[in-house]
Amino acid sequence: MRQTVPGEISIYGEGFVKGLAIDAVIFGFHDNQLKILIIEHGDTNLFALPGGYIFEKEDLNDAAKRILASKTGLQDIYLKQFHTFGDYSRNNQETIKTIMKGQGIAPDPRHWILGRFFSVGYYALVDFTKAIPTADALSDSCTWYDIHNLPPLILDHQKIAETALATLRKNLDEMIGINLLPENFTMADIKTLYETILGSELSRSNFQRKILSLDILERVENISAKYSHKAPFSYRFKRNAQNDG
Amino acid sequence: MRQTVPGEISIYGEGFVKGLAIDAVIFGFHDNQLKILIIEHGDTNLFALPGGYIFEKEDLNDAAKRILASKTGLQDIYLKQFHTFGDYSRNNQETIKTIMKGQGIAPDPRHWILGRFFSVGYYALVDFTKAIPTADALSDSCTWYDIHNLPPLILDHQKIAETALATLRKNLDEMIGINLLPENFTMADIKTLYETILGSELSRSNFQRKILSLDILERVENISAKYSHKAPFSYRFKRNAQNDG
Repeated sequence: MRQTVPGEISIYGEGFVKGLAIDAVIFGFHDNQLKILIIEHGDTNLFALPGGYIFEKEDLNDAAKRILASKTGLQDIYLKQFHTFGDYSRNNQETIKTIMKGQGIAPDPRHWILGRFFSVGYYALVDFTKAIPTADALSDSCTWYDIHNLPPLILDHQKIAETALATLRKNLDEMIGINLLPENFTMADIKTLYETILGSELSRSNFQRKILSLDILERVENISAKYSHKAPFSYRFKRNAQNDG
Repeated sequence: MRQTVPGEISIYGEGFVKGLAIDAVIFGFHDNQLKILIIEHGDTNLFALPGGYIFEKEDLNDAAKRILASKTGLQDIYLKQFHTFGDYSRNNQETIKTIMKGQGIAPDPRHWILGRFFSVGYYALVDFTKAIPTADALSDSCTWYDIHNLPPLILDHQKIAETALATLRKNLDEMIGINLLPENFTMADIKTLYETILGSELSRSNFQRKILSLDILERVENISAKYSHKAPFSYRFKRNAQNDG
């Protein structure tokens, strides 16, 4: 095992806030599939959400953006904080030791990096065909996994992912405007998006009534519709509704 | 100034998680008024949200309940975590020094209690005529203040309160079932609740259409209504809808 060298001090926790981490649940949606981004820690066979620490003078939200970019290669993603995880039982010294061993580091058993950690969870929703993740130097891979077929995740990362999905489902009405639908879309397009995220089929008439009652869509005047009664109506998000996201 | 004595070690931060605090925004609603609970730190003239620290082996949510009970005398309130505040600029050593001085404590300037703090925000919504707050030994008062007429608050507590209000407004549909309306209520009752929290008037017909489309209310069969066409319909929350809160 290597000794810690100067270039690795940040890995060992120097310069970072103690006891608080960030974990990110990045949902990828495309063509009726919902996936999330999972990294594999180098030489460990341990799978985890992309995450990291906060610099001592760094704002929490800035740290989340920096960590996501460095771990996944994804830049300028709209991240939303959803929950802070703080059960005492979520800590596991052995898991952290194994991850650090895979990086060639053997921390002092009394080092705070092996102690209790809280984690602030962030989530985002992107088109996974447009967002190509890249693993950082400490990870073997950074890959999209089907949400219903994840590898076993470390610590409480499965719970963090599930909580993010529950939050996403609850916040669906404010998330739909963001990057996932073309500017104009049909009622069938948006119904499919909802069904994929919710994981269940929706009744067509109920769905249309509910989504229209939210008052976030407006119908697009379609010239071709004058000539064809078969073309479905197109909709777009009202400007104000989109800004609320 | 007194020296720190054994009974005060917890005040001085021993046994607590370092760098992470909890702040609670407790909304009180009654008779078309919306208030929040504010404490005054003893001998300081400094006003703040009720808050405190987490014991080293205590779950985060348990700490929130304990802190709220100890600072306000309110027990068994349904608390909801809404955001973790982590801007570097939110810290102010002088404010914390003044509060500790009011408690007769002069911390070492290098003590972590004067360093950077993150704060996990929780909120709740209660009937303020039923919840009678009581200040703890370290506070001069614990009092309901009109949300539109708060005293100047320490650190970023004004921002925390405003973020809680914005979250409450967004989550209104899932909060309304909790302790704020009698079992049976009229459309006018629930419209008044919404208007008070939103701070704006709502159109009667639009409101009725929207709240019914949420599918959380059911109409109560009212025997007296058979004899009087003037009595308004009564509603209650569907059982499942209430459990979601």
